[in-house]
Order: sequence, then C-alpha cells, then structure tokens
Amino acid sequence: MDAPTERTRVKRMNKRGKYDADTVHGILDATPICNVGYVFDGAPYVTPTLQWREGDHLFWHGSSASRMLEACENAEVCVTVSIIDGFVMARSAYNHSCNYRSVMVFGTARKLTDPAEKEARLKAFTDGLWPGRWDMLRKMTAQELKATTVLALALDEASAKVRTGPPGDDEADYALPIWAGVIPVRQQILAPVDDPRLLPGVTPPRHITDFSFG
Amino acid sequence: MDAPTERTRVKRMNKRGKYDADTVHGILDATPICNVGYVFDGAPYVTPTLQWREGDHLFWHGSSASRMLEACENAEVCVTVSIIDGFVMARSAYNHSCNYRSVMVFGTARKLTDPAEKEARLKAFTDGLWPGRWDMLRKMTAQELKATTVLALALDEASAKVRTGPPGDDEADYALPIWAGVIPVRQQILAPVDDPRLLPGVTPPRHITDFSFG
Repeated sequence: MDAPTERTRVKRMNKRGKYDADTVHGILDATPICNVGYVFDGAPYVTPTLQWREGDHLFWHGSSASRMLEACENAEVCVTVSIIDGFVMARSAYNHSCNYRSVMVFGTARKLTDPAEKEARLKAFTDGLWPGRWDMLRKMTAQELKATTVLALALDEASAKVRTGPPGDDEADYALPIWAGVIPVRQQILAPVDDPRLLPGVTPPRHITDFSFG
Repeated sequence: MDAPTERTRVKRMNKRGKYDADTVHGILDATPICNVGYVFDGAPYVTPTLQWREGDHLFWHGSSASRMLEACENAEVCVTVSIIDGFVMARSAYNHSCNYRSVMVFGTARKLTDPAEKEARLKAFTDGLWPGRWDMLRKMTAQELKATTVLALALDEASAKVRTGPPGDDEADYALPIWAGVIPVRQQILAPVDDPRLLPGVTPPRHITDFSFG
C-alpha cells in the first residue's frame, strides 16, 4: 500500500482515516459486498456486487454481457466496501453519527484474459467464502468460463475510514436528560434453506452450516 | 415514476427489472444505507451514506465541508440502495447467485437552500427512523443548520432489481448429490448500548428499544 494520494487522503474527519494494509485488508475480508463506481458517457454509475481479495489485488466478476463489467474494463473505477456497525445516537441531531468500517479503492480495472487464471481466481473466491465448495460442485465448463468476466484492481490506492465508540456530544449537552448511546447493527446469517429440488438425503456441508463473513 | 430511460432499463437479467414506484419506494424505505456515485475530475467516486425518501424525492445530508456533497451539488449522481437477502448456492459455480433488492436512481442533485426546508427534511429523516426523537433532542442551532448540507434527488429516473427464491440450476445438474439452497442474511439490530456519560435514570425511549428498518 502506497502513501495516500490526493484522492485517498481522508479529508473530512481526518482522525478517522487509516491507510495501513492491515486495516484495508481486514475490512475487505470482512464482507464480500461492495459497490463499484464507474463512469459511462460521462455519468456516474454505482453497481452492487461481490468482491474478494487475494494479496494486494481485489477482484469482482459477472457475466461477460454485463454492461457494468464492460464499462469498468481498462477504466477508472472506485470500489467501496462499507460495513455499518451501529447508529450513534447523540443528545443533539447534529452529533448523531454512524459507526462503520469502510474502504475506498481507486484505480484502473483490468480484465483477466488467461482462462486458467480466471478459474483459479473464481475458485479462490468460492473457497474463500465456503471452504472446499469448489471441488464439490459440478465442474465449470469452458463455455461458462468464457461467459464470465473477472476484473482485477490493484490495492495501490486505497484508504479506510473507521468510526467506533459512543457519541461525541457538545460538552454542555451531557447535562441533558436525553438518552444517548449506540444501536449496534450487524449482518446476520440465518439457517440455510434447502433447495426444493434437493435430492433426498443430501445435507448441507460444514461450509454451509458454519458459514460466516470474514 | 416515468417509463424507463436508456440507463434505467435493466439490461442483464431483464426479468429481474422493476420500475413501479411501489417497488422502488419499498426498497428505499427498507434501509437508510446507500452509496452515492459521482464524478470528480473525470473519475468515479462512491461514498456510503444514509438516505431517506419523502414522496418522490430522495435526500441525503452531511457536513457542508464534505467534498462528496460539494461534488454532487448540481451534478449528475447515481444513488444505489442494495439489500442482500441471501446467498444462492447452486450445484455449479456458474449458477451461484445472490438474493437481493436494489434500486438505482439517476439524476442531478440539488442543494436545499431554505433553512426552514432543510430543518424540516432533517426532522423527517430523524423521525422517520426514530419516531418522536427530533423533539426530544437539544434544539438544532442556526450554526449547525448552516454547517449541514442537504441534497435532494428526484425519483424520476429510478429502477429496481430484485432476485428471490432458490437457485436456478442447469436441468441435468439437479440429479447431482450436491447441497443447494439459500443462506439467508439480514441486517440485525442488537440491544442499545448506553452512552458511558448517560445521566443516572435516563432510559432508552420506545423509538430506541423498538428500532427497526423500514
């Protein structure tokens, strides 16, 4: 991870800005959910998708027919991952806030062209979330691989922003009898639901029953 | 809500595209969390923030010093709300998917200039999430209002995309003894945590203890 550039330097709330690789990697690894920003005909687009990290690169994928992936190829993108950890309830409206962990990555997205590399990345994505699943699945066909685009983005230009803890109220406001604190939120994973066409006797493997983020 | 324009027409997975106002409003009202896309110096930026809806407009706010809000004012933006409802686990890697509800709104963001209107919108935002909270708080000052920017975006150009249900596997793959189904996920709200400096005897009001999205 390089030193902050003009656009990765956190401008607002500077004390919340973090640039070290451990923080950035930790947030990227904590959830696959991301939003990809790109420009098409001069206008901004934001598309939610799933990302994964290997080393100092972030990846996302989709159908080769996707106009998002097409617009991102060899183009400037911004991939944002944000995890909301709580609503910060202060004694004034102004001091309300959120606890969160977020990462913004800027750079030029590159399309993987080598089929073997594409497949290796897709396996890492699948097994990263559900260890061992790839080898349990019906094998990916050459046609499916061709119909799938994988984009890579170096983590050279990335920044994290984190807020934790209780509200920061104006000193005078602490004397007011107003409830203040944090309402924590988190992504909850519920019990898996069998496909209605599941063959009799097939039970969910450990990577399904033990699934968690990060 | 107008008929789909070129950029709101859902291209991929057309059967997942929905344009009716009830669907769009329902998703926007189901979570305040959104990602705002904008262009600055020709490059895309995606910033997570909170949105709220009143009628056929969506709003978001922040510090008047925010470079995101400054870049969005009178500019083309894309505001995306996405709620992930589950991971769709198929019998082949290719047919894995997500269940989700998402909305993309395109348009030009306008800054509210009338202080009374700004305050009314901020009250609606606060009370929309936590009914009655605004009037319990220390009153907002003129200085705080001045330091807060509220942006508005018409919902004229919006589209929703929704996926629900079990995996759609290749017909031949249903004969394979591979576990398939859905791992549901949802945003969970946990018990509120008192501020360490809370005055003795102050307990959380109903809008805190009963807090839920949507």
